[in-house]
Amino acid sequence: MAIRIFITGGTFDKEYDEITGQLFFKETHLPEMLKLGRSKLNVDIRTLMMIDSLQMTPTDRELIAEQCIRCEHNRIIITHGTDTMVETAAVLAGKNINKTIVITGAMIPYKFGSSDGLFNLGSAMAFVQTLPKGVYVAMNGRWFNWNNVWKNRQTGIFEELP
Amino acid sequence: MAIRIFITGGTFDKEYDEITGQLFFKETHLPEMLKLGRSKLNVDIRTLMMIDSLQMTPTDRELIAEQCIRCEHNRIIITHGTDTMVETAAVLAGKNINKTIVITGAMIPYKFGSSDGLFNLGSAMAFVQTLPKGVYVAMNGRWFNWNNVWKNRQTGIFEELP
Amino acid sequence: MAIRIFITGGTFDKEYDEITGQLFFKETHLPEMLKLGRSKLNVDIRTLMMIDSLQMTPTDRELIAEQCIRCEHNRIIITHGTDTMVETAAVLAGKNINKTIVITGAMIPYKFGSSDGLFNLGSAMAFVQTLPKGVYVAMNGRWFNWNNVWKNRQTGIFEELP
Amino acid sequence: MAIRIFITGGTFDKEYDEITGQLFFKETHLPEMLKLGRSKLNVDIRTLMMIDSLQMTPTDRELIAEQCIRCEHNRIIITHGTDTMVETAAVLAGKNINKTIVITGAMIPYKFGSSDGLFNLGSAMAFVQTLPKGVYVAMNGRWFNWNNVWKNRQTGIFEELP
Repeated sequence: MAIRIFITGGTFDKEYDEITGQLFFKETHLPEMLKLGRSKLNVDIRTLMMIDSLQMTPTDRELIAEQCIRCEHNRIIITHGTDTMVETAAVLAGKNINKTIVITGAMIPYKFGSSDGLFNLGSAMAFVQTLPKGVYVAMNGRWFNWNNVWKNRQTGIFEELP
Repeated sequence: MAIRIFITGGTFDKEYDEITGQLFFKETHLPEMLKLGRSKLNVDIRTLMMIDSLQMTPTDRELIAEQCIRCEHNRIIITHGTDTMVETAAVLAGKNINKTIVITGAMIPYKFGSSDGLFNLGSAMAFVQTLPKGVYVAMNGRWFNWNNVWKNRQTGIFEELP
Repeated sequence: MAIRIFITGGTFDKEYDEITGQLFFKETHLPEMLKLGRSKLNVDIRTLMMIDSLQMTPTDRELIAEQCIRCEHNRIIITHGTDTMVETAAVLAGKNINKTIVITGAMIPYKFGSSDGLFNLGSAMAFVQTLPKGVYVAMNGRWFNWNNVWKNRQTGIFEELP
Repeated sequence: MAIRIFITGGTFDKEYDEITGQLFFKETHLPEMLKLGRSKLNVDIRTLMMIDSLQMTPTDRELIAEQCIRCEHNRIIITHGTDTMVETAAVLAGKNINKTIVITGAMIPYKFGSSDGLFNLGSAMAFVQTLPKGVYVAMNGRWFNWNNVWKNRQTGIFEELP
């Protein structure tokens, strides 16, 4: 069965608006990234929102959970801003969804040339195929259980809880 | 324990020589790629050779196998030209090495800007952490058992055997 | 004699801060860009400020003018944010400096992969060698006299006055 | 009047064939490069050939000269492999064409991410607008008269004759 990919925005998909000089969201780069990676996996991509994860509300997280529950897929990737990735993972875990859910993101926008996004996407696509049911964060080449991870905001690195 | 990465060359590491106008190998880009991916995995990188895999001899494959057997690591990634990746996988499988070995590569050189290499490396790093012992090829976002994969030379895509 | 390059910031040199998610200035990319372009021109680069040109004050413009007057060079390039490039050109023209001064910039930061910066820099380096004394803006592959140019803020394109 | 751009191939337009692992020519990247540079110059682009300049024959050079003579444009850019750029310049100069002709090229293919091509194109577009009638080579940020330039094959740099 296909892998479901839910897009929620985050640094992954930020672009530079040359008229305003500001960062903004236009549309997701996921299809372009999968094409660049020559991925031949069967995927269903759906954009749920296009926001900075600092702006994500409890209602937004309920919507994401609802979509994870309702879809027919057993393997789900969620692209997400890194700042509140862990909060969303906890909400999803609280729903006891019997699926493999991998949340990933990027520190540098894909469009900025030297992004970690393509590496993270490659690892998330692999983890979602091989990890047992559960909710995970995939960053820095690693996977973390939802309840054993935090983002170190000084370094920008995801780590296990102390 | 650290993940061992053996470098053998292949498209991954090809560069353009601006004096001769030819493609050539200088040194591996793996450390640069892992840095770009913000990988925080513990890795030991070792270059075994820097060749086009069409030039790889049986002796070269024995050397790779020997290195996989001798090293203390249980999880090994081998970067490799795509043309004979499957042959090397078969040689390694014949040695009954009790480790997880993932062979990966790229269709486009990393230095050429629009490479699949970073995506493949991300997926290989994830597969090597999660797959059971065995010999695998990781390409196109997928993993294949060594005895159930071939490279379709018309399309450049790795597929299961018919 | 060498070409003088004064750096004042602008989109040219903006970077993405992966910790804060904001755009910021660190240091100029001019030497890196000239190296990428294999430029063999003799240049003296000096950073005067590193600011968004919307923040540029009359005092900043006086400082730039002062530096243009005082330096021993007859050919000067100024990298500058596009939003107030024309204002700075007018201030410089008012000083009747007997040199060729070319102001250039970029719509997309150099570090963002798909920037117009390298093209603009190439054209500015050429114009400064070939245009007679005067103050010019070099953008969109064209050169404009300081008193016959404006930035169309809807399109981001520099045009002659109507 | 528009600037004429004649395409002849060269490193500028080389691509990597991911099936064969060889460099090859598909189509010119000039329109894409001018778009990236936000060029608003009026140009007429025409591909005359797509070859490595080491393969260029006297007949090819006659064809290029013929096209320069016949076209209605007074300002012409020719993209060309760097190895025999100077030979073509000499052939053109021998025809006493009363136009400004600027020959440029690249050391690294545009598609390879870290190319000098965009810088060279920017400078060539500027030189063709500002230099008097004559035949010139534009490389390394500089312009050279056709009879005072050679390519140093050890360094890849264009220099004045000793």
